[in-house]
Amino acid sequence: MPTIAETVMSEADLAAFIEREFPQVRGDFAVERLTQDGVVIRLKVGERHLRPGGTISGPSIFGLADVAVYLALLARIGPVALAVTTSASVDFLRKPEAGRDLIAEARLLKLGRVLVVGDVLIRSEGSEAPVARASMTYSIPPERPQALPSA
Amino acid sequence: MPTIAETVMSEADLAAFIEREFPQVRGDFAVERLTQDGVVIRLKVGERHLRPGGTISGPSIFGLADVAVYLALLARIGPVALAVTTSASVDFLRKPEAGRDLIAEARLLKLGRVLVVGDVLIRSEGSEAPVARASMTYSIPPERPQALPSA
Amino acid sequence: MPTIAETVMSEADLAAFIEREFPQVRGDFAVERLTQDGVVIRLKVGERHLRPGGTISGPSIFGLADVAVYLALLARIGPVALAVTTSASVDFLRKPEAGRDLIAEARLLKLGRVLVVGDVLIRSEGSEAPVARASMTYSIPPERPQALPSA
Amino acid sequence: MPTIAETVMSEADLAAFIEREFPQVRGDFAVERLTQDGVVIRLKVGERHLRPGGTISGPSIFGLADVAVYLALLARIGPVALAVTTSASVDFLRKPEAGRDLIAEARLLKLGRVLVVGDVLIRSEGSEAPVARASMTYSIPPERPQALPSA
Repeated sequence: MPTIAETVMSEADLAAFIEREFPQVRGDFAVERLTQDGVVIRLKVGERHLRPGGTISGPSIFGLADVAVYLALLARIGPVALAVTTSASVDFLRKPEAGRDLIAEARLLKLGRVLVVGDVLIRSEGSEAPVARASMTYSIPPERPQALPSA
Repeated sequence: MPTIAETVMSEADLAAFIEREFPQVRGDFAVERLTQDGVVIRLKVGERHLRPGGTISGPSIFGLADVAVYLALLARIGPVALAVTTSASVDFLRKPEAGRDLIAEARLLKLGRVLVVGDVLIRSEGSEAPVARASMTYSIPPERPQALPSA
Repeated sequence: MPTIAETVMSEADLAAFIEREFPQVRGDFAVERLTQDGVVIRLKVGERHLRPGGTISGPSIFGLADVAVYLALLARIGPVALAVTTSASVDFLRKPEAGRDLIAEARLLKLGRVLVVGDVLIRSEGSEAPVARASMTYSIPPERPQALPSA
Repeated sequence: MPTIAETVMSEADLAAFIEREFPQVRGDFAVERLTQDGVVIRLKVGERHLRPGGTISGPSIFGLADVAVYLALLARIGPVALAVTTSASVDFLRKPEAGRDLIAEARLLKLGRVLVVGDVLIRSEGSEAPVARASMTYSIPPERPQALPSA
């Protein structure tokens, strides 16, 4: 039974996992470090994340929150499980600083057999005041019995 | 004072507005029709919205919900106001049908002077069962007093 | 496998269920009617639901939303299952009309084996404009295998 | 302009405020202590907060979250302002411990002129694992110009 305090993947494992499984967002995220109850993820802000006026798009911030809590989870249960986002609540608090990456600090609040809940604070690099906060819920599908060979 | 029942922009006005103001998502959305209390928006699903296994990414669904309620609002207050998304709550209900567009049906629940709230149901085209539901809040900045000429 | 379209409890069954299982809120709620995808519930507003100024308290509105979606669920799966509220998102839209009951119109959006999601619009009786909207998620615990007699 | 770091009400001021303004919940809450960015509030769990099986009711947990963030706010802006809850998102994480009070640790994330956002973790006294987390948004009505005497 996995616990929040015990990780089974390293920062490098998580980075390799994103690279391999999510080619569509390749290069967007960096795994900064594992923490006691979560993980810190960087969004390497580029042209495609911006909106007119230089602000970072809502979907980019949502995607960062989702990836951060998801990786906090995978670091505890390993890359095998197929967790699915079932709900998200996001508050957009202030405009990000122009020309800076976003840093997401995610922590797990519940690591159940079926439901996993975490929250995340997102800041512009070098700033204290949060740009957004989000809470995310994931559902872990029940393990299917192994198919019998040649069955 | 704008009301939900009265629109000041047509479908074509809204389409032109997206085209002009959001070049980054050009071609992603189509304005299907204005409704009594909202608007129906289509996400023209393409390669860039997909995740492994052919499912549509969370940020794409979030972006569709955000655009849909935002356009429901603009249709009532006109293209001038600078509304900002302040919060979002999304439930992901089931996997979208492969190879189909998403259709978002947004309605406004409150059109206040400062806060605007709407919700949205998102379905795969041709299906009844919703893929996601979301509620979105926007804040409308107070009008600044006009600068006096040569003041 | 239960479906949203098929009910297994009547209005009277639901009323008797509240009466029996939730003595603490006895007399607070009335089951107005079952609908195609949900149920309509009345909060009989009394002194204990009010706050200074005659407005209805946040916890009372939350409780109404919770009970309404919960009963929409029970009407489909029957009174046996022990569903647990796992998350709630509520928008408070306007002040209720003084001296009127609240009417909650709940509908189920997903009736899964494990997760159930519904949303609800709450109005003052006789008014069109909603006082609040909420979405609620319930988790249904897995059925435990029946203990074998004398096992 | 108020800031999160600076408080203008003491623990005793907050306790007196609840006592005076919210007679309906008299005796339910205790102000444990002000913190750097928020406040710690205790729900003195009594018979009226319970549900069958000895668990604490959803509305009681919602009410605790709401009061906690509200008092975190008032401690910074003073008892005059009439802040209104505009939205709430709550995750129920695990069953509270029987026979224990709930302790809510609230912090402010944004203290704007119009919108205030905070979040809160709720635990059973003496336990580390959270029972619930919530985020709350309040809207502060614009100051009305003072009525002129005999106007």
